[in-house]
Amino acid sequence: MTKTVVITGGNRGIGLGMVKELLKRSDVGKLFATTRNPAKSPELKAISDPRLQIVQMDVESDDSVYKGVHEVSISKALGSSGVDILINNAGVLISVDINTPINRKDAEHNFKVNCVSVMVVTQAFHDLLKTAAKQNGHSLIVNVGALLASNKCLHGSGPRHFTGYAMSKAGMNMFTTNVSLDWKEDGIRCVVLHPGWVQTDMGGAEAPLTVEESTSCMVDTIFKLKEEHNGLFYDWKLNPIPW
Amino acid sequence: MTKTVVITGGNRGIGLGMVKELLKRSDVGKLFATTRNPAKSPELKAISDPRLQIVQMDVESDDSVYKGVHEVSISKALGSSGVDILINNAGVLISVDINTPINRKDAEHNFKVNCVSVMVVTQAFHDLLKTAAKQNGHSLIVNVGALLASNKCLHGSGPRHFTGYAMSKAGMNMFTTNVSLDWKEDGIRCVVLHPGWVQTDMGGAEAPLTVEESTSCMVDTIFKLKEEHNGLFYDWKLNPIPW
Ligand SMILES: NC(=O)c1ccc[n+]([C@@H]2O[C@H](COP(=O)([O-])OP(=O)(O)OC[C@H]3O[C@@H](n4cnc5c(N)ncnc54)[C@H](OP(=O)(O)O)[C@@H]3O)[C@@H](O)[C@H]2O)c1
Ligand SMILES: NC(=O)c1ccc[n+]([C@@H]2O[C@H](COP(=O)([O-])OP(=O)(O)OC[C@H]3O[C@@H](n4cnc5c(N)ncnc54)[C@H](OP(=O)(O)O)[C@@H]3O)[C@@H](O)[C@H]2O)c1
Repeated sequence: MTKTVVITGGNRGIGLGMVKELLKRSDVGKLFATTRNPAKSPELKAISDPRLQIVQMDVESDDSVYKGVHEVSISKALGSSGVDILINNAGVLISVDINTPINRKDAEHNFKVNCVSVMVVTQAFHDLLKTAAKQNGHSLIVNVGALLASNKCLHGSGPRHFTGYAMSKAGMNMFTTNVSLDWKEDGIRCVVLHPGWVQTDMGGAEAPLTVEESTSCMVDTIFKLKEEHNGLFYDWKLNPIPW
Repeated sequence: MTKTVVITGGNRGIGLGMVKELLKRSDVGKLFATTRNPAKSPELKAISDPRLQIVQMDVESDDSVYKGVHEVSISKALGSSGVDILINNAGVLISVDINTPINRKDAEHNFKVNCVSVMVVTQAFHDLLKTAAKQNGHSLIVNVGALLASNKCLHGSGPRHFTGYAMSKAGMNMFTTNVSLDWKEDGIRCVVLHPGWVQTDMGGAEAPLTVEESTSCMVDTIFKLKEEHNGLFYDWKLNPIPW
C-alpha cells in the first residue's frame, strides 16, 4: 500500500529536501508539495515525477489554505483514500532580542506562522486525515519543530535572539500534544520532529548538517513512526527529546 | 528589608486576590497594581493602603506599557531601589476549537496577550529589575501559567477548546526558560506558577478553589522562591510541574 503525503513549504530548504527524499521511496504513491509562490519555486518545478503535484498555499491566508486543501481533495490521484501523512514544515524564524524593546510585529509573526497557521492547515486537513486513517488504520501529522523549544535542553546564557521563535515552537509542541489526544480516536497520530541544525536560509551556512543529511534521515524516521511515538518529540534520528 | 512588587491585571480575579494577600505582608513595602482601566476597577480602588499605587496599563499597547513603567520608575516610594518582584498575571483565555475551522483572530489573541505582551512588559521592567537585583542580591519575575500547558500532564481526550490558550501558555513557559538563563547574570530569576483551577471569570464557578485559597498560598509560595527554583514550573503550593 502506498502513502499519500502532503508537505508545506516544499520549495526550498528542508521542505525541498524532504520532497526529494520522499520521491526516492516506492511506498510514496502521491506527494502534494505546497509552496507560497509556485512561480518562484524553480527547483521544485524542475522535479519531474508523475507522483508530484505542486499546490499553491500561503499558510498565513485562510483563502489560500482552503483552496489548496480543496485542490488536494479533488485530485484524481487521491481518489477516496485521503491523506496519510501531513508534514507541517513551513515556518519562520523572526529574531526578537529580549534585551532591547520588543518589536511586537516581529514577535507576533513567529506565532502567526509557527502556531496559528499550523493550527489552520492541520484543521483544514482533518477530514482527509480521518479518511486515510479509516482506510489504512492510521494517519500521521509531523510538525517540524526545534530543539530550541525544549525547556529541558535549553542551556547556556547570553542574549538569545531566538526567544520569540523558541516560544512559538514550544506552542507548536503543545499543539502536537493536544492533537495527539483529541484526534486519537480518529486514528490520527501527531509527532514533533527536530531536523537538526541544517544548512538552509534559516539555519545558515555554519550549520553542521547538509539538507540531504538531515532530510534523508528525517524521511526514514517518519516512515518508522508507530503508535508508541504518538504525541512525542524526537530528533531526525528518532532520538527522544524531552519537553 | 521590604520588597517592591508590581502585578499586572490587578483589578479582578487572581490579580485582585494577590493584591489583597500581598498587602497582608509586612515585608511588602510598595505595591504597584496595574489595571487596563482604573475607572472600571472599583474593588481595587476601594483598597486604602498607602503602600498601594494603581497604575494604568493595557499590556497590549506599547504606549500604555511604557507610560506605566515610567510612572513606576518616577514614584517617590520606589526611590532608587528598583522592582524586586514583577508578577505577570494579566492573561486571556480565548477558546479555539480544533474540530471546526480555526478563527485566526481568536487564536492569535491568546498569543498576543499571553506571550507577546508578557515579553513587552517584562522587557520594559528589565532595568528596574536589574536595579533591585544589584541592591538586594536578586529580583524575581513570576509568570502566572497553567497546568494545561504541561505537555507531560495533559491527558484525556475529547475536543479541548483550550488548545490555543494552552499553546500560548506553553510559549510563556519557554519565555520563562529563556529569561531565567539570559538574565541570570543580572541576578534576575524567573519562575512559572500555576494558581490552580480558581473561581474567577476565567476559571468559572465550578472551579474547586476560591480566589482567596489560591492567592494566599500563591503569595506565600512567591516569598519562598529561591535560586534553586529559577527557570522552573510550580503550582501554587510549590509542587513542581514537569514541562
Ligand atoms: N534549518 C534549521 O537548522 C532548522 C532547525 C530546527 C527547525 N527548523 C524548522 O524546519 C522548517 C523548515 O526550515 P528551513 O530551514 O527549511 O527554513 P527556510 O529555508 O527559511 O524555509 C522556510 C520554508 O517555509 C516557507 N514559509 C514560510 N512562511 C510561509 C507562508 N506564510 N506560507 C507558505 N510557506 C511559508 C518558506 O516559503 P517561501 O520560500 O515562500 O518563503 C520556505 O519554503 C521550519 O519549520 C523550521 O523552523 C529548521
Ligand atoms: N482561573 C483559573 O483557573 C486559572 C488557571 C490557570 C491559570 N490562570 C491564569 O491566571 C491569570 C489570571 O486569571 P484570572 O482567572 O484572574 O482571569 P480573569 O478573571 O479573566 O482576569 C484576567 C485579568 O487579566 C487582565 N487582562 C487581560 N487582558 C489585558 C490587557 N490587554 N491589559 C491589561 N490587563 C489585561 C484583565 O483585565 P480587564 O479586567 O481589564 O479585562 C483581568 O485583570 C491569567 O494569566 C490566567 O491565564 C487562571
